[in-house]
Amino acid sequence: MAAKFVSKRNLKFLLYEVFDATVLTQYPAYAMHNRNVFDMVLDAGLKLAEKLLRPAYEEMDRQTPQLEAGQVKAYPAIRSFMQEFGNGGWIAAGFPLELDGEQLPHSVNGLCRFIFAAANYSASVYPVLSAGAAHLITSFGSPELIQAFVPQMLGGKWQGTMALTEPQAGSSLADIMTVAEPDDEGHFRLRGQKIFISAGDHDGVDNVVHLMLARIAGAPPGVKGISLFVVPKKRIGPGGQLEANDITVSQIYHKLGYRGTPITELSIGEKNNCHGYLVGEPHQGLRYMFQMMNEARIEVGLGATAIASAAYYAALDYCRMRTQGRPLGQKDPTQPQIPIIEHADVKRMLLFQRSVIEGSLALVLQCCYYTDLQAVSSEEAQRKYALLLDLLTPVAKTYPSEMGILSTSQAMQCFGGYGYCDDFPAGQYLRDIRIHPIHEGTTGIQGMDLLGRKVIQHEGLAMHFYMAEVGQTIEAAKKNTDLAKYAGQLDEALNALQDVTLHLIGIAQKKGPVAFLADATLYLELFGIITIAWQWLKQAIVIQQALAKSPMGAEAAFFQGKWQTFCYYFAYELPKTLGLIKRLTDTEAVTLKTQTVHFDD
Amino acid sequence: MAAKFVSKRNLKFLLYEVFDATVLTQYPAYAMHNRNVFDMVLDAGLKLAEKLLRPAYEEMDRQTPQLEAGQVKAYPAIRSFMQEFGNGGWIAAGFPLELDGEQLPHSVNGLCRFIFAAANYSASVYPVLSAGAAHLITSFGSPELIQAFVPQMLGGKWQGTMALTEPQAGSSLADIMTVAEPDDEGHFRLRGQKIFISAGDHDGVDNVVHLMLARIAGAPPGVKGISLFVVPKKRIGPGGQLEANDITVSQIYHKLGYRGTPITELSIGEKNNCHGYLVGEPHQGLRYMFQMMNEARIEVGLGATAIASAAYYAALDYCRMRTQGRPLGQKDPTQPQIPIIEHADVKRMLLFQRSVIEGSLALVLQCCYYTDLQAVSSEEAQRKYALLLDLLTPVAKTYPSEMGILSTSQAMQCFGGYGYCDDFPAGQYLRDIRIHPIHEGTTGIQGMDLLGRKVIQHEGLAMHFYMAEVGQTIEAAKKNTDLAKYAGQLDEALNALQDVTLHLIGIAQKKGPVAFLADATLYLELFGIITIAWQWLKQAIVIQQALAKSPMGAEAAFFQGKWQTFCYYFAYELPKTLGLIKRLTDTEAVTLKTQTVHFDD
Repeated sequence: MAAKFVSKRNLKFLLYEVFDATVLTQYPAYAMHNRNVFDMVLDAGLKLAEKLLRPAYEEMDRQTPQLEAGQVKAYPAIRSFMQEFGNGGWIAAGFPLELDGEQLPHSVNGLCRFIFAAANYSASVYPVLSAGAAHLITSFGSPELIQAFVPQMLGGKWQGTMALTEPQAGSSLADIMTVAEPDDEGHFRLRGQKIFISAGDHDGVDNVVHLMLARIAGAPPGVKGISLFVVPKKRIGPGGQLEANDITVSQIYHKLGYRGTPITELSIGEKNNCHGYLVGEPHQGLRYMFQMMNEARIEVGLGATAIASAAYYAALDYCRMRTQGRPLGQKDPTQPQIPIIEHADVKRMLLFQRSVIEGSLALVLQCCYYTDLQAVSSEEAQRKYALLLDLLTPVAKTYPSEMGILSTSQAMQCFGGYGYCDDFPAGQYLRDIRIHPIHEGTTGIQGMDLLGRKVIQHEGLAMHFYMAEVGQTIEAAKKNTDLAKYAGQLDEALNALQDVTLHLIGIAQKKGPVAFLADATLYLELFGIITIAWQWLKQAIVIQQALAKSPMGAEAAFFQGKWQTFCYYFAYELPKTLGLIKRLTDTEAVTLKTQTVHFDD
Repeated sequence: MAAKFVSKRNLKFLLYEVFDATVLTQYPAYAMHNRNVFDMVLDAGLKLAEKLLRPAYEEMDRQTPQLEAGQVKAYPAIRSFMQEFGNGGWIAAGFPLELDGEQLPHSVNGLCRFIFAAANYSASVYPVLSAGAAHLITSFGSPELIQAFVPQMLGGKWQGTMALTEPQAGSSLADIMTVAEPDDEGHFRLRGQKIFISAGDHDGVDNVVHLMLARIAGAPPGVKGISLFVVPKKRIGPGGQLEANDITVSQIYHKLGYRGTPITELSIGEKNNCHGYLVGEPHQGLRYMFQMMNEARIEVGLGATAIASAAYYAALDYCRMRTQGRPLGQKDPTQPQIPIIEHADVKRMLLFQRSVIEGSLALVLQCCYYTDLQAVSSEEAQRKYALLLDLLTPVAKTYPSEMGILSTSQAMQCFGGYGYCDDFPAGQYLRDIRIHPIHEGTTGIQGMDLLGRKVIQHEGLAMHFYMAEVGQTIEAAKKNTDLAKYAGQLDEALNALQDVTLHLIGIAQKKGPVAFLADATLYLELFGIITIAWQWLKQAIVIQQALAKSPMGAEAAFFQGKWQTFCYYFAYELPKTLGLIKRLTDTEAVTLKTQTVHFDD
C-alpha cells in the first residue's frame, strides 16, 4: 500500500497561504494559538494517522463488525483508537476550553479530520460522530445533560451517534414515528425503531449516546412535531452506575464498503423502559438536529475528498513505477518501456483526480473558515458567514462525493487490470467512497435544499453574498495578467449561473415548485463546478505570487504542479458547465411529462 | 431480487422494428431462418437465463473460484451450465451448419448473449469465450486443428480462452515474451507466463484450450514477431487420450466483482513440455487475434449494457414499491407518502439509465447487424460494413462500459441507503460492471485506437461512411415534423464532430502524434455521445411511426416511454458534447506541459 495518503505541503498551502488561519489568532477566541501550535497539531495528527489508523485500513475492511448476542463486536483496536482520540484531545479539539477542549479553529481541526479520514475512513467516523453529538448537547442541552454526557463522549469513553432514520422516514424526516411519552420522573420513555445508525453500538466504548429524533405523544404531525432526545444505550442509574436502557440492536447491515463502521438497526423501548432526556424545547428537534446534520454534511464532503486523496496517491505511486508502452511515434520495441505517468492520457487522469481533490478540499476548508470567521466577527458579519455556510453546505457535501467517486474510479483505472484485483486497495477505496452521495441526505435532497431553500431564502441574500465573494476573487485575479483570462472564464460562468437561477425562479413563478425543482440536481452540479473553479482561482492567485518569486527545487515542483492542475480544471472541468447551462435553460419538461406507466415495457 | 433483468419488448423492437433482422433471411446465408425461428430462439434464451443462470447470480459472487492443488474449482453448477450451453447449441449458434452450428445471424445471437449476461454476467462469459476462441481457430487454423479442438469447444466440453496479457505486456502487446520453440514433431514448445486469463482453468470442463500469443524463437521484436498458437491445458495424446500439457495455474486473482469467473495466472512450459500448435502463418498472430479481440470488445460493450439493464430493472422495481415523501407543494404530513418513482428527480435517474442502456444496446446491435450485412453483401459493401464495424468497435466497447458504470451507480442511488447494503444486489452490479473499461483494452487504449487509427486510416474512409450513415438517419428524421428539431440537433453535433476531427488532424500535422492523441479519450467520449444520439434518432423514427398509429394499452406505454427516453437523451445527454467540443478545440496542451516532477508534492 502506498505510504502517502495526503499532501502535507498542500494542507499547509491551503491553511496558511490561501486561507490565512493565523489571522484568526488575532481574535480573543483563538488568541491562545499561533502557527507553531497549528503546525504541531497537524504534525501530531499525521503521525497518529500513520501509526494508528493507516495500518488497520485493509484489515478493518475484512474483519467487519459482528452482532453477537445483542452486542456489536467492532474491530478490536477501536477501543484503543477511541482512547487515543479521547486522551489526545482529538474529539474535543474544537470545543471551548471550559469543556476541556482545545478551542482549535475549525480550519485546523478540519484538516486533522481530513488526515484521519484519508488514513482510514471507517476508523475516523467514530470520533467525529462523538464530537458532533456532543456539540449538539452543548449547543442546546441543559447544564445537567452536558455534565452527564459530554465529558465521557469527548474523552472517547462513550460513543455519540445521530439517530434519525426510520424504515419509513429516510429522506422524509417528517414521517418519523418514534414516540416519546413523558414519565413520572420528568423525562421520557421512547419507543420505536431506528435504522442505518452509524456506530449505533459497539464494544470499543462503555456506552453509546444517541441523539435521537422522536415525537412527543400528541405532538403535531410532520416536522413541527419532532423533538430531540439524548437516549443512551445505558442510562446512569441513581448511584451513578450504568444500567441497560432497553435499546437492542436488531441487525447490523452488510455493506458495499465503509465496512469498519457498524451500521445498525435499533429497537427502542421494546419493554417500555427506554429513558430519554429532552434536549432544549419540545418540537424544536429538527431545527437542533440540523446543526449536527449540516456539520455532518460538510464532514461527508471532507471524508469523500479524503478517500479520493488516498486513492490518488496510491495511483500516483503506481503510475511512476509501472512501465508500459513507449512514447507515441517512437515505437522501437527494443527500447525499454516508459513509466506510464509519462503518457498524456495518464497525466490527464492524474490531473483530473488532483483537481477534484484539491478543489474539494479548498471548498471544505472554505466552509470551516466561514465557521471560524463567525466566531470572531461582528453580528452583521456573522449573519453573512452563516448564510454563506448554509448555501455552500449542500455543495460541499455533494461535489466532493459525486466527483470523488469519479476520481477514485480514475485512480482504479490508472492501475489497469491490477486495480480491479484485491492486491491493490483501489477497489476498497471505490467501495468506501460510494456511500457519500447517499448518507446525510442524498444528492437529490441536496439539490432541492440548495435551489429550493438556500438560493431563494431571505430574498436571495445568501446568493448575493456568494456572488460578491466569488466576484471579489475574480477582481483580484484580473489584476494579474497571467490570470485575467481565467478570471474572465469564471466571470462568464458566474453570470451564466445567475441567468440560470433567474430563469428557474421565473419557472417557479409561472409553473410552481415541481417544475422549478425538477432539475435541481443538475443545478447543484452546475453550482458545484463553478464553486470549485472559484476555489481554484483563489488558489491560483497565491500560486502566481509564489511562482513570481522563482521558487527552487521541491517548492518549484509543487507550485508548477498546482498551476498545471489549476489549468487542467479550467480547460477540462469548467467547460462541463456548458451542457448543464444548455439543459437548465431549456424549457422542455421531459421528466414531468414522463408518467409512471411509461416505465412499463 | 427483481424478476426482470431485460425488456423483451425492447429486444424485439430493436431486432425487428429498428434493425429489420428478417431482411437477412432473404439471403442464402440465413435463408433457413425466419422470424418465428428468431422468436423461438430469443424465448428459449430467456427461459434458459431465467431458470439456469439467474438463480445463481448472487451465490456465484459469494462462492468464488478457488485454486486447490493446482486445479481451479469453479462454482459447481458451471459444469451443467456448460453442458446446457453446449447441448442446446448456444455456443455454436453463430457457427455455420457444416460445423454443427445454427448459422444464426449475429444480431439474434447477440441478443441471446445480452440476455445471458444480464441474467448472470460471470456465468455468461464462459460460453462466449469458447465461441470466440473456436471462431479464431475456424477462421485461421488448419482443418486438423479445427477438427481436433472446435467440436469439443462448441459442445461445451472444453473451455476456450484468449491468452494475451503478460506481466510486462498488458496494453503494450508488442512486449509479449512468451517463447515458442519449434520441436521435432513439427509443432512448438511454449515457455512463459500469462496473467489475467479469464476462465484460464476450471473444473466445469474437461479441458481448456488457450488461444495464445507467443514469439517464435528468433522472431523480430515488437508486434511483427508475434504468432498465434492453440495451447491446450491437456494435449491430445497419440491414442486420443488427454495428457497434461505443462501449464500450471500459479494464482487466481481476487477481484472487486465479476467474481464468478476465475481470472488466472498461468505458468507455461516450466518443464519445457508445453506443446502448442501454430494457427495460420508465423508472425501474423496479432492480426488474427484482433478478430477475437474485436469481437470481445463488442462483447464487453454488450456485457456492460446487460449488467446496467439488470441494475435498472432492480431499481425500477424498488422505485415503484418504495414510498417516501409527498408531491412538492403538497406537504401535508397526514397524507400518505407516494412511491418515489413519482418524484421528478427519480424519473430523471431512471430515464438516464434507460437512455444509456437502450442507446448502448442499439449501438451493439448495430455492430452485430453490420457483421450480418457483411455476410450477405457484395464485396464493395462488405468493405464498407467492415470499416464501419472497425470504426465503431472502440465506441461500442467504451460508451456502454463507461456510461454503464454511471447508470449502475444511479441504479444504486435509486435505492438510497438500502442500495449500499447487501440486501439488494445494487452493490454487486456496480462491482461487476467496473471491469468493463479495463479489460479488452482500457478506455485510454480505445481512444487512441479510434482517433489514431480508425478515424484516419484509408484517408478517413471509415469516417466518411459513418458520416453518411448518420446523415441518412438525420435526413429520414427531418421528414417528420416531430423529429425535425432533434434531427437538426444531431446534425449540428455531427458537424461539430467533423470540425473537431479536422482540428485534431491539423494538430497532428503541425505538432505530431503526441499532441494529436493527448485528448483521444475525450474524443472517444464525444464520438460516443453523438453515436448514441444517432441510435436514438434511428429508434425515434420508428417510435413516431408507431405512435402515429395510436397504439393502446401496453404498446402505448412502451412507445410513449421510448419517446420520453429519446427526449431525455437529446435534452440531457447530447448537450454534454458542448463541453467536450470546447475542450477539444482548445489548443492549450495542459497535459503535455505537465511534467512528471510536477506531481511531487
